[in-house]
Amino acid sequence: MRMNTHYSELKESYLFSEINHKVATFKASHPDADVIRMGIGDVTLPLCQASVEAMKEAVDEMGRAETFRGYGPEQGYDFLRDAIASYYAKKGVALERDEIFVSDGAKSDLGNILDLFDSQNTVLIPDPVYPVYVDTNLMAGRRIQFLKATVENQFLPMPPAGVKADLIYLCSPNNPTGAVYNRDQLAQWVAYANDQDAILLFDSAYEAFIRDPSLPRSIYEIPGAKTCAIEFCSFSKTAGFTGTRCGYTVVPKDLTRGEMSLNRMWLRRQTTKFNGVPYIVQRGAAAVLTEEGIRQAQQNIAYYMENAAIIANALRGLGIWFTGGENSPYIWMQCPEGYDSWKLFDLLLEKARVVGTPGAGFGSCGEGFFRLTAFGRREDAKRGMERLCGVYPR
Amino acid sequence: MRMNTHYSELKESYLFSEINHKVATFKASHPDADVIRMGIGDVTLPLCQASVEAMKEAVDEMGRAETFRGYGPEQGYDFLRDAIASYYAKKGVALERDEIFVSDGAKSDLGNILDLFDSQNTVLIPDPVYPVYVDTNLMAGRRIQFLKATVENQFLPMPPAGVKADLIYLCSPNNPTGAVYNRDQLAQWVAYANDQDAILLFDSAYEAFIRDPSLPRSIYEIPGAKTCAIEFCSFSKTAGFTGTRCGYTVVPKDLTRGEMSLNRMWLRRQTTKFNGVPYIVQRGAAAVLTEEGIRQAQQNIAYYMENAAIIANALRGLGIWFTGGENSPYIWMQCPEGYDSWKLFDLLLEKARVVGTPGAGFGSCGEGFFRLTAFGRREDAKRGMERLCGVYPR
Repeated sequence: MRMNTHYSELKESYLFSEINHKVATFKASHPDADVIRMGIGDVTLPLCQASVEAMKEAVDEMGRAETFRGYGPEQGYDFLRDAIASYYAKKGVALERDEIFVSDGAKSDLGNILDLFDSQNTVLIPDPVYPVYVDTNLMAGRRIQFLKATVENQFLPMPPAGVKADLIYLCSPNNPTGAVYNRDQLAQWVAYANDQDAILLFDSAYEAFIRDPSLPRSIYEIPGAKTCAIEFCSFSKTAGFTGTRCGYTVVPKDLTRGEMSLNRMWLRRQTTKFNGVPYIVQRGAAAVLTEEGIRQAQQNIAYYMENAAIIANALRGLGIWFTGGENSPYIWMQCPEGYDSWKLFDLLLEKARVVGTPGAGFGSCGEGFFRLTAFGRREDAKRGMERLCGVYPR
Repeated sequence: MRMNTHYSELKESYLFSEINHKVATFKASHPDADVIRMGIGDVTLPLCQASVEAMKEAVDEMGRAETFRGYGPEQGYDFLRDAIASYYAKKGVALERDEIFVSDGAKSDLGNILDLFDSQNTVLIPDPVYPVYVDTNLMAGRRIQFLKATVENQFLPMPPAGVKADLIYLCSPNNPTGAVYNRDQLAQWVAYANDQDAILLFDSAYEAFIRDPSLPRSIYEIPGAKTCAIEFCSFSKTAGFTGTRCGYTVVPKDLTRGEMSLNRMWLRRQTTKFNGVPYIVQRGAAAVLTEEGIRQAQQNIAYYMENAAIIANALRGLGIWFTGGENSPYIWMQCPEGYDSWKLFDLLLEKARVVGTPGAGFGSCGEGFFRLTAFGRREDAKRGMERLCGVYPR
């Protein structure tokens, strides 16, 4: 019996456990402290009523013989795939129903998509980054080349000269930096990928937070993307589905390599190793994409973006360099002179009783930066930033 | 860019599309024909009321700020893992909470578990078999050795002499044959696996259909299984969750190979590539495991098993050899002299207007056999078997 020994090469991620440990220790010695969590990457507002009603109706359907549903199509019900296609059409992107695969979330698909590729491929991954991109490749023993995201490139790395890549991860709006690629920048990536025969794995989980109409909300807004890109998206942040679990992945029919159609390969992967998303949840997701659902979901997003504006304004007032916060729920701020990201974490926890996320936890280029998020309550965003301003080193 | 070329080695499964094609063709030429489907592997009774009520309550919780839930633990909420542990305790199996991993179904986990193993391993798979075991291994390029299930071994193959295996799939009660291993037979498999350092992948998705108290309902009822077996189970057939999606996988802490703990590896796999089952669905699943939920689920199972008894009695009356039907919703019958499984399919469709599943679709040893299932309506089971008796070659 041989195990997959690449698992033993994985580093344990201590980021969130270390944060929780430090917060718990602080609270133990300051039992009355009112600690504000501004590092949280999870939504806090409840599901919109359109979803709630649709799901209750769907539960009732499942409880009656005439309307009960057993196995559904692994790739999602037509009613939801069609609703997603219409959502894309509003962005100016034409997709066919069978280019859309409904799943239990972008995280699953971002990991599982690697089944389709040989383990000898070279993978380009930005640094700092969502750790899932890195770990899922290490698990299969792939070579990773990191793309440095820095102040110089505004945390938006561009195609590296002289590098032959096979798989390229891009996330825009970015987690953790909140930076968003513009149309011209994405066009350069699409040209690079098509030129190299590489595949772009484009994570658009935060597309609904884009306010600036000139910024692309799908990679397929870029001509040529259908021959090189797979797009991963989710209802998690768009509609508060982090605990309800529904996402979708677009694999265009034009995406082929040699004789192999990636659309057909992914269909085969999903029909073999997946059995679809709960009918109840698909009804809830489809309700998000109705006119009323979109309006309700946008209200929640507007609430979060008002938090983001409060955070961004406070940082501007302090003269702190940051990315994000305008078209993204994340704000990525530079640490002050003499502070690494954990030192800033300790300062804010101890003096301001504010918890953020040290950038070093997202990769070596994250050192010297700190992530704040807009997913909390309004009052906490206001009070948190007042406290941060009060203790910030000048 | 290199693709995973093993995908091109997969055979397309034409079984169910071929069945659907033949039925559609027949109906086109016999528009008034009342065709009875007895080949269906999906449940037909609605969810039990305990689940329906729990899920509606959970949907409401998701719609209110005070009770909303975002990301849950990837491996499942404690309330459900503890309920599953109690369910096992009733079978006499002691499990710790963190040996239980909640998932969206046995199919996903049976495929994804292979991430933990090297692709050079040798895999033993029974024939006939649930095609997912075969395809998921072919996708990774593993060598498969088939274990012949035949009339001689009552479709319960035992450890082969002189074969060195690494991974072994067992499914009991079996799909498609309905055969169930007894305690002594499973003890031989456990001894063989421990002796060989092999891992048993034990699919117990149909355990709730076992009526005979002497038959094991979990591999862990066999001493020694915790050092060699992973068990996959599901609410799909137990509680009609085929479209609601919830299952669980047990990876004992005693299951280690070299320095590697399979429990820790699976935790790492799931936390990296999965984001948990919807909170709503987990509440519905936990309701199945309450006293009232178990009672309601058992009523549905009793309904199906009464169908199975009707089918089995009719076959006995005809003197047909079969397995299953007593502790399983599947009945696996021998085709009459001069009939292969597709020829019997055609006869039953054309003369009796009954649809079953040709055994050849489950593997080469399935040729000469035919699968009927108990998941339909009572009236259809009765009428279907009357018609089958009427046309059966003698």
